Amino acid sequence: MRVMIEVELKVRADHAQVRRALQRLGAQPLGVEWDEDLYFNAPHRDFRQSDEALRIRVRGRGGILTYKGPKLDPGSKTREELEVEVRDWQRLRDILLKLGFGEVAWVRKRRERFRVDPFVVALDLVEGLGEFVEVEAESDGPFEDLLTRAKELLRSLGLPQETIRRSYLELLLEREQPENI
Amino acid sequence: MRVMIEVELKVRADHAQVRRALQRLGAQPLGVEWDEDLYFNAPHRDFRQSDEALRIRVRGRGGILTYKGPKLDPGSKTREELEVEVRDWQRLRDILLKLGFGEVAWVRKRRERFRVDPFVVALDLVEGLGEFVEVEAESDGPFEDLLTRAKELLRSLGLPQETIRRSYLELLLEREQPENI
Repeated sequence: MRVMIEVELKVRADHAQVRRALQRLGAQPLGVEWDEDLYFNAPHRDFRQSDEALRIRVRGRGGILTYKGPKLDPGSKTREELEVEVRDWQRLRDILLKLGFGEVAWVRKRRERFRVDPFVVALDLVEGLGEFVEVEAESDGPFEDLLTRAKELLRSLGLPQETIRRSYLELLLEREQPENI
Repeated sequence: MRVMIEVELKVRADHAQVRRALQRLGAQPLGVEWDEDLYFNAPHRDFRQSDEALRIRVRGRGGILTYKGPKLDPGSKTREELEVEVRDWQRLRDILLKLGFGEVAWVRKRRERFRVDPFVVALDLVEGLGEFVEVEAESDGPFEDLLTRAKELLRSLGLPQETIRRSYLELLLEREQPENI
């Protein structure tokens, strides 16, 4: 549970190569998680237009409801996030459906995380999309300085500077409907 | 957490008198609770028109999100209910507000419950409204027979047969805006 600004840069990357660079930097392994996320759209506004997101992350029988606000700057994926844990994710899904929200897609990924202070580097293997790296940090204040340092970290990991602003959800939907981009 | 049909009859009542009748019937006391409920309206349809309800019931730091569907028959308050527990009710409120839902009103009540199988009889003292009695039972199948028996119970408690279909929320809102009924 948190209210903060998430600074986040995402690039396509070869994981084997990034793992070697992380080792050279002395990055601390934080473990692996499997995420199963169900995304929703709203009945009264199109989240693709408003640049918001609403999802349930499955955690056994329970889950986490996350709201993501519109991105706050043009270069990164920085945005506001609100999260709350629920006891029964399927019951929450039923309520959202009754309220008129619609299921959009599942996003499933393997995420391996490393700490390189003040950042967390995530090696994501996304079902249907392939390998990505995300550099993330959280801030409750101004985030511009953090953004500059995140880009320096990308460089020192040998990663491209052209970051991807689109979410995995958006990338998956584009892939399914290449005509409609 | 549950999916079922809630059969529910509500009447205005003098609690002291109903308590005596319950004692004669050998009703089993189930205890007292204080409910603090925050009700919401939706941005895309007016729950007063669609006869739905969405509320957070506060339970310490946590809470219960409840969706109530439209009433299923003309005489009672029978309707579908979906509930899910959340870890942090204020965080859930923040997410609902971000999604465009609006806070409508708080409903606060003292509820004293008794079991008279298969029913639960609730003596409700509602802030701003006064004393009521609700007769409730849950069913996952046909509810007409249950409804008939609930009305018989009302009679044997010396209570009026003219039931109130409106929710405490509706009664409170009418009270605040008597011109707009």
